[in-house]
Amino acid sequence: MAATPIAEELARKQKEISVAEFFERNKQLLGFDSPTRAMLTSIKEAVDNSLDACEEAGMLPELLLEIREHSKGEYFVACQDNGPGIVKQNIPSVFGRLLYGSRFHAIRQSRGQQGIGISAVVMYAMLTTGRPTRVISKIGPDHPAIAMELILDTKKNAPDVLKQEVILWKDPRARVEDGPAREVKHGTRVEFVIKARYIRGKQSPYDYLRSCAIVNPHARIVLVEPDGTQTVFDRATEKMPAQCVEIKPHPEGLELGTLLKMAKETESYKLTSFLVNDFSRVSLDKARQVAQKAGLAENLRPKALDLEGAKRLVGAFKEVRLMAPPTDCLSPIGETLIRKGMKKDVSADFVVTHTRPASVYSGNPFQVESGLMYGGALGKEDQSTLLRFANRVPLLFQQGGCAITHAIEGMDWRRYGLEQKGGKGLPSGPVLFLVHIACTKIPFTSESKEAVADVPEIMAEVELAMRECARKMQVHIKKRARLAKLKEKEEIIRQLLPLIAQKSAHLLGRPVPPIEPVVAKIMNSVLIKEEIEFDEKKKLHHVRLEIINFTPTRKKFKLLSVVPADALVPGVDPKPSSMENHIITWDLKGLQTAERLQLGFDLMGLDKDGFDECELYVKDIDPELVNGAEPWDAEAYEKRLNEKDEEEEEEELPDENGGPGGKGSCGKGGED
Amino acid sequence: MAATPIAEELARKQKEISVAEFFERNKQLLGFDSPTRAMLTSIKEAVDNSLDACEEAGMLPELLLEIREHSKGEYFVACQDNGPGIVKQNIPSVFGRLLYGSRFHAIRQSRGQQGIGISAVVMYAMLTTGRPTRVISKIGPDHPAIAMELILDTKKNAPDVLKQEVILWKDPRARVEDGPAREVKHGTRVEFVIKARYIRGKQSPYDYLRSCAIVNPHARIVLVEPDGTQTVFDRATEKMPAQCVEIKPHPEGLELGTLLKMAKETESYKLTSFLVNDFSRVSLDKARQVAQKAGLAENLRPKALDLEGAKRLVGAFKEVRLMAPPTDCLSPIGETLIRKGMKKDVSADFVVTHTRPASVYSGNPFQVESGLMYGGALGKEDQSTLLRFANRVPLLFQQGGCAITHAIEGMDWRRYGLEQKGGKGLPSGPVLFLVHIACTKIPFTSESKEAVADVPEIMAEVELAMRECARKMQVHIKKRARLAKLKEKEEIIRQLLPLIAQKSAHLLGRPVPPIEPVVAKIMNSVLIKEEIEFDEKKKLHHVRLEIINFTPTRKKFKLLSVVPADALVPGVDPKPSSMENHIITWDLKGLQTAERLQLGFDLMGLDKDGFDECELYVKDIDPELVNGAEPWDAEAYEKRLNEKDEEEEEEELPDENGGPGGKGSCGKGGED
Repeated sequence: MAATPIAEELARKQKEISVAEFFERNKQLLGFDSPTRAMLTSIKEAVDNSLDACEEAGMLPELLLEIREHSKGEYFVACQDNGPGIVKQNIPSVFGRLLYGSRFHAIRQSRGQQGIGISAVVMYAMLTTGRPTRVISKIGPDHPAIAMELILDTKKNAPDVLKQEVILWKDPRARVEDGPAREVKHGTRVEFVIKARYIRGKQSPYDYLRSCAIVNPHARIVLVEPDGTQTVFDRATEKMPAQCVEIKPHPEGLELGTLLKMAKETESYKLTSFLVNDFSRVSLDKARQVAQKAGLAENLRPKALDLEGAKRLVGAFKEVRLMAPPTDCLSPIGETLIRKGMKKDVSADFVVTHTRPASVYSGNPFQVESGLMYGGALGKEDQSTLLRFANRVPLLFQQGGCAITHAIEGMDWRRYGLEQKGGKGLPSGPVLFLVHIACTKIPFTSESKEAVADVPEIMAEVELAMRECARKMQVHIKKRARLAKLKEKEEIIRQLLPLIAQKSAHLLGRPVPPIEPVVAKIMNSVLIKEEIEFDEKKKLHHVRLEIINFTPTRKKFKLLSVVPADALVPGVDPKPSSMENHIITWDLKGLQTAERLQLGFDLMGLDKDGFDECELYVKDIDPELVNGAEPWDAEAYEKRLNEKDEEEEEEELPDENGGPGGKGSCGKGGED
Repeated sequence: MAATPIAEELARKQKEISVAEFFERNKQLLGFDSPTRAMLTSIKEAVDNSLDACEEAGMLPELLLEIREHSKGEYFVACQDNGPGIVKQNIPSVFGRLLYGSRFHAIRQSRGQQGIGISAVVMYAMLTTGRPTRVISKIGPDHPAIAMELILDTKKNAPDVLKQEVILWKDPRARVEDGPAREVKHGTRVEFVIKARYIRGKQSPYDYLRSCAIVNPHARIVLVEPDGTQTVFDRATEKMPAQCVEIKPHPEGLELGTLLKMAKETESYKLTSFLVNDFSRVSLDKARQVAQKAGLAENLRPKALDLEGAKRLVGAFKEVRLMAPPTDCLSPIGETLIRKGMKKDVSADFVVTHTRPASVYSGNPFQVESGLMYGGALGKEDQSTLLRFANRVPLLFQQGGCAITHAIEGMDWRRYGLEQKGGKGLPSGPVLFLVHIACTKIPFTSESKEAVADVPEIMAEVELAMRECARKMQVHIKKRARLAKLKEKEEIIRQLLPLIAQKSAHLLGRPVPPIEPVVAKIMNSVLIKEEIEFDEKKKLHHVRLEIINFTPTRKKFKLLSVVPADALVPGVDPKPSSMENHIITWDLKGLQTAERLQLGFDLMGLDKDGFDECELYVKDIDPELVNGAEPWDAEAYEKRLNEKDEEEEEEELPDENGGPGGKGSCGKGGED
């Protein structure tokens, strides 16, 4: 066989592929695999860009999104923001070049991180309707508004500006919202025509913006749909989310190759100063420890670091305990705002949210927030609903391919009282899950940014966050079920017993006997009822507890109420025996049969929606006798506290790749 | 507010991102999101490349894959093939540059289509272990073997060759397989060290190669695992799959942008010759029709084609009926080989496979093949199993994010007798599904090539292919259930009746009465039993049918047997009343109560495993009386035949985007 010509023939076909040609041929990677999805992807990229720009400039976002049918199967889309604008010379590259952007190299949470999104839309518009994209930008009141028409040349992956002019930019929001036609002060507007399909309902632009509003309560977005319908997603808060600070790489989970590259490029002349200057959380003291453990000289020139040295350095990072990365590069939404957003969406019997402390994967800080709703308007027979978010962006597609889904599917929900076929997969029943991942670099499974990759550390954190919610849901379900049963029992007894007593007394001609001891004998239970009221004026939650001893004997026990960590407790009545670690403890010295006792306390600093069920426990009494409180488990509570402080190692990490969670703080909890 | 400085400050951060830097930071896009998956991805890319190279050169693939633990958490991987080799000057770019390759622009089925795979492995190796990749290549017996050590410079996305030498290349297969240490004639070997984890079981390299063997029966692969275990996946056939021919783009579903670009770059001077020369399936006659419908002059210079003209041209393509794209660019596996592969893997009661005719999405020809197994060793309680393949490559990850999964999940399997919660999701029960998509460009959801995007046309074809299998499974399940019930009934009757008859005859002192009429009265059924035997020598399937009239009256009806389209029927006994359209029809003139009739026929040209259940139908008799055959439905069969010939429009396409299936042939059916 003559092998020569084959290899040489093949060689002639081998050539370079432009990155734009690559994505042109693989549009589905960017989220353009169907007309419906193309519409959503285009809108998402434009909106994400606008929100990022406004937040970076510290401006409350004010967006206008207009969608019109242009011709059959073609839609005109315009997205306008009140952001800082884009300087003229950068407009072509921002919109007409793939892999170009400001957020790719920055280590902090942002929506756009790839430098692909909006340029991909420009490319898709050209490819499907042959029309250029129009961009208007104004960077300040004293600057002219620049309008540009451009396309992306896929052969070169470079912008091609077809037209450029200075215009007088009247705010179309005035037209849309019937205000005076002012001139725009600053902002960006992008207009394109794409082949797409406009739908409403699930996975629609409307659905996207509605979800967007849950996690971006500081943004105001006006949507004008093709049929003229106008919807205002108004802001729920005037407060900007905490601005995310750019940080340096954290040594935890650092790749060898990255370390070598950093050492080659550093401006430091000594190993220790390289470690201190180019990484976060490495003090001079720690740097010296690291160098020593790695067996490297402190004054080694970083550029001289070889493979073996780098390997030892990576090993030493693991041995020397470093502080977890700073979390001010992240902007979680916070338990209260998530709860608020969920409640606005659906009404349910029970809502719980949880924000995990920050963690790290491959050197990237991230933080998981979870929410769970149960009962109420949620369908009993249906499959549970899952809302996924990444860096405040709703993820509407690719649910089945997402680490968030996989983590929840992998949990045994039967243990928490839900129905789940074979103990795997999404459980069914009246449940809604919400997960938000905040991260300096979300590991998406594709450029379309709709699913998170199965990174073991992230999956473990999602599971931990969900377990916290699940545990509370389980208590709630059990408590409700027992109370409902007891209520039924009590009702029957209270209706029947007096009748029986009267009847038999009458028959026997004797006085009616006291009923309470009999009730107690039958009920044989200490009942704890709770009532929560919110005082709008004083912004206080009044909690009232009533304890009734429905047992035939005197009862003596301790009642504990765990209060939210972020709440103040201005008043407790009667005086508790102790108050520490967010636990109010009452020592109930003795409660006679049928005796009732009133207890109460106030909580301050919580949102109206922030508290709707007490966490009650009892001690020194057979828990089987008590209804309305759980048996106290000091060890479990200890563990919970520790988990919050993240002192313990995450023994849950399913992979050797998982680093310890670090000992960072509890996260900032967003803007609330 | 001073907006100027903000926009200008942001502008300073905007910069270009190298494609390699992009993928370095987004390794998960390439399938490197966990150490386990990194191992599989690396092996997959190397094996896919080797198989592609061998097939392109028309050589039967002979692969050696060696995996050794290099140090804790680091593995050495070597993949060697007997392919055509790579010419020296191209080795650096093939292995050290992302977006470089020979298969990206070619319109024909191949495993690698992106020009990313193996270079990504080289990058990952460098990044995680700091080690260069070693490549050995020899392009023929008279050429030297070249060994090269290289890395990928991510800043430049360019190869950096560290070492290059000519070596004497002894075949390590000799060492592994204990043969003589010959010199390698031609081939490629790639060696790298990666941070990874080696597992066995699900989603392991072993699992991958095992699945690979099902769809690549012509390849021989030797696997040496880290513990020294050696497995040979031997070839099941010496026949190469039909070589895939490169075709030109088909006008169906062509994007406007692509058309404009092609018009700009064509070497033709006239519109009609441009259409004839640069597209497939456009004859001069059709080209003239298209030009006329588009209102364009036949001699219009393609370079002068404007947006409006191009739009009209795209419209005209839809109006003029063109032949479906040629399918010799595809290489389906074929029903028989799929059946064989499935049977080798698991033993089941029932196997059915189906190859759909070729179809098109956005101008890309594709073909879907499906397989379904039921019962036997498959677990009754478990969720069904799904094996996914794309261009003969097993897809092991991202099942939940794949169009194949979504198409199957969207079907109501309860209609076909399977359990399926809420009529959605993968059904449970003893079922295994297999789907293979062959396409000139598989629309993967990410560069890691583990899931197919939700392209409506593909999903519709998967559903059609699966429905064909599901329908047959349903008939099988019903038939089995009825026969089992009947068998039970018959057994009881046959055991009890003679005893009763004897006993009562004895008691009354009268002769034992004939039993058959009584049996018939109770059974009231015409029973059709089948027996299939394979004659190894003559390569014939002998089919024997027995018909027993277990009814009290004489029965007259027609029996039809549908035989596989690809089988010859050399003998039928007794002579049928007709034989056409793959249907054998017997006219059964009259069968007395308890009368038995033997029928039989032989099938030729089918694989041993290719036939294990008859398709039997009856006509002109109450089908309720018959067990072992279905009522004949001429209309349904007509429809089936038409579907095969693809004369009808695919009314199932769920999207306006879906083009007609075309009127192409039935596909080549692979190498069988």
